[in-house]
Amino acid sequence: MKIQGINGAAGIAIGKAFVLPSWEWDLPDQKMDSVDLAQEFERLYEGIRTSKHEIEYIKNEFREVVGPEESSIFDAHLAILEDPVFMNEIRGIIERQYKAAEVAVKEAIDHFVTMFDLLEDEYMKERAIDIKDVGNRLLKHLLGAPEITLPSDTQPYILVAKELSPSQLAHLNPSYVLGIVTLIGGKTSHSAIMARALGIPLVSGLEASLDLPVETGDLLVVDGDNGLVFTEPDRKTIERYTMLRNKELKKKEQLQVLATVDAVTKDGAVLQLASNISSVKELDLALKHGAKGVGLFRTEFLYMDRATFPGEQEQYEVYRMVAEKTAGQPVVIRTLDIGGDKQLDYFELPEEDNPFLGYRAIRISLDRKDLFKTQLTAILRASAAGNVKIMYPMISSVEELEQANEVLREAMADLDARGLAYDSHIQVGIMIEVPAAVMIADLLAEEADFFSIGTNDLVQYVLAVDRMNEQIAHMYHPYHPAVLRMLRATVDAAHTAGIDVSVCGEMAGDERSIPLWLELGIRHLSMSPQSLLRVKHRVLNTTAADAKEEARKCFALRTSSDIEERLQKFNDVSGSPDDQSGSNAS
Amino acid sequence: MKIQGINGAAGIAIGKAFVLPSWEWDLPDQKMDSVDLAQEFERLYEGIRTSKHEIEYIKNEFREVVGPEESSIFDAHLAILEDPVFMNEIRGIIERQYKAAEVAVKEAIDHFVTMFDLLEDEYMKERAIDIKDVGNRLLKHLLGAPEITLPSDTQPYILVAKELSPSQLAHLNPSYVLGIVTLIGGKTSHSAIMARALGIPLVSGLEASLDLPVETGDLLVVDGDNGLVFTEPDRKTIERYTMLRNKELKKKEQLQVLATVDAVTKDGAVLQLASNISSVKELDLALKHGAKGVGLFRTEFLYMDRATFPGEQEQYEVYRMVAEKTAGQPVVIRTLDIGGDKQLDYFELPEEDNPFLGYRAIRISLDRKDLFKTQLTAILRASAAGNVKIMYPMISSVEELEQANEVLREAMADLDARGLAYDSHIQVGIMIEVPAAVMIADLLAEEADFFSIGTNDLVQYVLAVDRMNEQIAHMYHPYHPAVLRMLRATVDAAHTAGIDVSVCGEMAGDERSIPLWLELGIRHLSMSPQSLLRVKHRVLNTTAADAKEEARKCFALRTSSDIEERLQKFNDVSGSPDDQSGSNAS
Repeated sequence: MKIQGINGAAGIAIGKAFVLPSWEWDLPDQKMDSVDLAQEFERLYEGIRTSKHEIEYIKNEFREVVGPEESSIFDAHLAILEDPVFMNEIRGIIERQYKAAEVAVKEAIDHFVTMFDLLEDEYMKERAIDIKDVGNRLLKHLLGAPEITLPSDTQPYILVAKELSPSQLAHLNPSYVLGIVTLIGGKTSHSAIMARALGIPLVSGLEASLDLPVETGDLLVVDGDNGLVFTEPDRKTIERYTMLRNKELKKKEQLQVLATVDAVTKDGAVLQLASNISSVKELDLALKHGAKGVGLFRTEFLYMDRATFPGEQEQYEVYRMVAEKTAGQPVVIRTLDIGGDKQLDYFELPEEDNPFLGYRAIRISLDRKDLFKTQLTAILRASAAGNVKIMYPMISSVEELEQANEVLREAMADLDARGLAYDSHIQVGIMIEVPAAVMIADLLAEEADFFSIGTNDLVQYVLAVDRMNEQIAHMYHPYHPAVLRMLRATVDAAHTAGIDVSVCGEMAGDERSIPLWLELGIRHLSMSPQSLLRVKHRVLNTTAADAKEEARKCFALRTSSDIEERLQKFNDVSGSPDDQSGSNAS
Repeated sequence: MKIQGINGAAGIAIGKAFVLPSWEWDLPDQKMDSVDLAQEFERLYEGIRTSKHEIEYIKNEFREVVGPEESSIFDAHLAILEDPVFMNEIRGIIERQYKAAEVAVKEAIDHFVTMFDLLEDEYMKERAIDIKDVGNRLLKHLLGAPEITLPSDTQPYILVAKELSPSQLAHLNPSYVLGIVTLIGGKTSHSAIMARALGIPLVSGLEASLDLPVETGDLLVVDGDNGLVFTEPDRKTIERYTMLRNKELKKKEQLQVLATVDAVTKDGAVLQLASNISSVKELDLALKHGAKGVGLFRTEFLYMDRATFPGEQEQYEVYRMVAEKTAGQPVVIRTLDIGGDKQLDYFELPEEDNPFLGYRAIRISLDRKDLFKTQLTAILRASAAGNVKIMYPMISSVEELEQANEVLREAMADLDARGLAYDSHIQVGIMIEVPAAVMIADLLAEEADFFSIGTNDLVQYVLAVDRMNEQIAHMYHPYHPAVLRMLRATVDAAHTAGIDVSVCGEMAGDERSIPLWLELGIRHLSMSPQSLLRVKHRVLNTTAADAKEEARKCFALRTSSDIEERLQKFNDVSGSPDDQSGSNAS
């Protein structure tokens, strides 16, 4: 049987199902007039303590696997156990209604989940899932219920669950989970995001098939690329998918060979492919994939998953390590870019109606010059150890750039006074991601050493489309003619001023864009480590002269779909990684 | 004593204080073991019924004064009385704790207000105020407490209150309220917004002075322009402010004379000043102020404050009335622009993280072509009765414009089939408010009959600044060089294509912009009825040649502050309405 769901995480899995029972508990539901209040409270607090330790433990384990950003969700879970409103509700039920601790916890969960669900606010709904997850953990300890048994790590399996909470997912040993199937959940659920980070194929949203006829031990095929699940697959299906899976693996191996090769088109045009990273672990992967330095070091991770701002020395050590590891290749360190959809636990940002149009990035740094100067000082010190550059995010005016540079000069003066070394000719550039920056790129180029175009935000602002918003995500068009014209305007201004311009948004990792870069004269791209080899493969199979001609035609088109279609066709003809035979066809 | 607060609503008031006592009730706080549950429930439901009737009554009264948009807050109040979570909480306390209805209401209010306050979410905090307001009304009825007496309407007064809820404000007779002083509240509080709509000076945010030494009957001076309150004002202060107040009144009278005069500069450049309206009432004011037609008819009001979408006939009658009243002058009707910060009670829009970058305006219309066609049909029918034009909001691509026009053609075909009259050469234009539209203005100009630049949204998107966000409102710069360049690019594209271009955002109502319009070659402006005479006065006192030279200098400047300063200076020198003697100084 073939069941259509949502493609949550790409890849193919073939293996035996393990069906995870849902968390359902039997509760002592009667009023307990003879209940010992003191004892119930003691049990409650003990349960909270145990739950906290457990969450801490999971969080640490999880961070090892997927990094600090994704694991920060467990801080939210810890916070719930300290939330006065939730805890008061539980205490109130015990105290006023003489109910057992587990009953009180269950009722409080139900109360809050119902309430948050009614509020019809996505943020609140997510909070409801967190409360349910934490509450169930607390319940488990109060009831002394056994941990739901996962299969022992002797045999890989495909996990099947009604819904999968982040903490359940965290319990998994990724090397034994071939794939995941959940009835509930969409593309942007925490589970899907984590599965993608872990590289596990995931299909979700099978709600229509609530009576999924799968039992532990059944053979399944999961097609995470197309959101398909096959139960009782016939031999043909199994063979087809086995072939596809093997092809995937082979493709990966073939690409890895390219790591040490330069990205040069058939007719000799050279592109520099650097990597976007947000951790040292990602840097290792990037270097393994042959990155020519770091085009965007997102420093947010240094600030996340902790209790206070990182100090100068701590930041310095990380920046220096990255500079040393890249061994003389450029490392572009972007100053803190929080706000928008990125929050810190210990730095309270205002709740905003439109955070993407709000208090974020350089706007916060210029407001909190103390923090900003600490970061700039740490970056400057690291510049003594490698080819380090500074980049400011979200610049929208000449004044902002001047103010930021003013703080930089102060940091330099302090280092001079302390007698510490730094690169006094350090290059200082800006992200071009606000439409205003494009419009005044000529003015900004007078005071910046380089531009890096952040296409993700730029496209959002130019089109007024929040790409995380499922309702209008189909309107997010990187290949919109307005975007192409903004790219050209930025490059023209940079070239006129004689400064370098690179692209570090997701467009850089989309091999279909290569003709645009060649035509515009952009030679530096920075992308996720996962994209490096794929893009390089495409560059190697491209003839720059043809690509440029194609790009010129694209610049003359009137609609996104026409442009995307044209680029897609050119890409198909020139050969994709799994179709190397076509590489001479263009 | 002079006290500094926040200038919530402009204007000057001199008069006697009326101090509003806060809503504080004595409650029967003991458990009532002998309470009759059925009776308490009966009392609760009776109180809810009475409260609902009262809110309905206030809402209707209020709508008469300030229009449907502001009065829609009372729908939120009615909704709370039907909110299952809030009501369950009250019922639960009565039922489980045997408490009297009023105690249960009080505890439920406290519970929710505390909880929402803890959530640190502006939206939730506003909900908390609403719950408090509704809950207090319910309490009042349960306790049989007397309505807090407002002064009889025989003598005007200045209202002084700790905080003023919208429903309290709604009880006021605006013709007897000279001014308002509140300790709590800011510029964007509902009270401030309403006071501005009512034209009552308001100073708020005097929290630092919680022991405000004011009693009913004391003489006060309220300076709403500067956010000042004077207690026990001395004779000099009273004289000064009396003069200022009289000057204000005189200025208004003088400006009214200009209603029938054309807006022509001293050297003969003519500007067409049309008005933005959102209701027939506003149209009357616009015509009284000499508007040359309607440059922007916001049709949202037709859809608000009701239970279902308005039908074709109902819309047609309103559009026709507006077309007839403007007597041949152009009326530009913008199709529905909901979403963003504008919601309808009966049309559920998704909760969005960034509604300004979300599902709104034409994006909804093209999704709901049934509604869109109904509106277009109604507008088309009205075009038989006057000089009506159609305008689409939020256009960001050629495809959207083509799709919208496709629906328009269908509507025309239907009318042909029904044998109903319409202007088959009706002009169809678009708002230029998304940066993408500016970038592809040349492509859009091929298919649009006119452009109208919506500077409010355009500035927000270009600078990535939500101007309603207090944290970054200071970054909202209409005079940013990037904005000026976008204006120029739009005008250039329009002129090349030979189509008309106007400005309908708030910049049009800011007389400092006049040099920009003259230099750019923009001759059509549309603004709020309140701005018409002020802007016209400024045009009459401007020499276009000087203004253009000034504008050219502005276009060469690098920062918003330099540009704004320059325009401000030019405006000051050329004479503002209260300084007519300086009108020849430039």
